[in-house]
Amino acid sequence: MPFKQYIRNIPDYPKKGVIFRDITTLLSDAQGFRKAVDALVQNHMIDKVDLIAGIEARGFILGGAVAHQLGKGFVPIRKKGKLPWETIGEEYELEYGTDTVEIHTDSIAKGSHVLLIDDLIATGGTAAAAVRLIERSGGHIVAASFVVDLPDLGGRRRLEELGVSVTALTAFEGL
Amino acid sequence: MPFKQYIRNIPDYPKKGVIFRDITTLLSDAQGFRKAVDALVQNHMIDKVDLIAGIEARGFILGGAVAHQLGKGFVPIRKKGKLPWETIGEEYELEYGTDTVEIHTDSIAKGSHVLLIDDLIATGGTAAAAVRLIERSGGHIVAASFVVDLPDLGGRRRLEELGVSVTALTAFEGL
Repeated sequence: MPFKQYIRNIPDYPKKGVIFRDITTLLSDAQGFRKAVDALVQNHMIDKVDLIAGIEARGFILGGAVAHQLGKGFVPIRKKGKLPWETIGEEYELEYGTDTVEIHTDSIAKGSHVLLIDDLIATGGTAAAAVRLIERSGGHIVAASFVVDLPDLGGRRRLEELGVSVTALTAFEGL
Repeated sequence: MPFKQYIRNIPDYPKKGVIFRDITTLLSDAQGFRKAVDALVQNHMIDKVDLIAGIEARGFILGGAVAHQLGKGFVPIRKKGKLPWETIGEEYELEYGTDTVEIHTDSIAKGSHVLLIDDLIATGGTAAAAVRLIERSGGHIVAASFVVDLPDLGGRRRLEELGVSVTALTAFEGL
C-alpha cells in the first residue's frame, strides 16, 4: 500500500480551506510505521550518519524509531523553554508572529553527521531553524527526511537552497 | 554502564530544591539509547503486546523506538488540542490547576493489548490519565514502562493500585 493511503486527510483543519495530512493513522499501523521508518533510513547513506535529530513533537516518534533502527543516538529539537540544560535557539516565522526552537549546547559533538527527521515539510520554517541549530552546534547535516512534503508551500526548495539534501516519502499538491 | 550514569542531574530545575533527571544525555548516546529501548522491551511479555502508546513529548522518542523494535504501531497521547481528529480527554492535576491529555477515538482497536511508555514517572498523574484514556478506548494495558522512577512521589504505587503492572529501568530517591 502506498504511503499516501496510510495518511488521513482532514478537510478544513486547522482552518477552512486547508486539508490536514494526519500521519497518526500511518503511525498506528504496524506495517505502515515500519515501512515509513525503513524508507526514511534507506534513502540515506546510512554509514555516514552519526546522530539523528528530531523536531518536537511528531518528529520525535519517527526520529526515535530511525535512531533505533540505525543504532545511533537521538537529539531532540524542542519548543522554547522545554529543554532543561543550556540551550541555543533559533526563531522562525509563523503566519502571525514568530516562534523559537532550541537545542542543548552540548548535544552534538563537533563534526558529527546529523540526519534531521520530521513528519512533514510545509513552508520549511521550523526545519530551516533546526538546520541552523545543528550547524551552529558544529554538526553537518547529511540530509533532512520527511514522511510528507507539501511542495506548493516551498519548504523543500528552501532547505535545498541552504544546501540541505531533502527526501520525502510522499507529496501532496495544494495546501 | 548502569542507566543512572547516562542521566544528567540538574539541581534546582525547574525550581529550587528539585533535581531534574535529564534523559537527553541517555538518548543522545547510541549505546545508552539502545540499551534503554532493549530493556523497556525485554521487561514485558512481547508477544502479548499489540500496540505501543507514548505520552507527549519525551515518551514519543522512546515509544517510537519501542514500537519499531517490536514491529508494532504507535499511538500518541497528546496535550489538549494537538490531535487533529475526534478525541477523548482526561484531566489530571498539576501542582496548581489541571491539565488534559487526549487520544484519538479510533486509535485503539477494541481488545488491543497496549504497552504504555514514558520517560519518567513522578506523581503518576499524567500516566494515570493515559491509562484511563486507553481503557476508555477499549484497550487493555499490558504494562506501563518508564526509564526513571521517582518512588518517593508515589506514581508507581498509584498505577499499581489501578491494576497496572509498572516497570522502570532505574529509580532516584527524593524529589
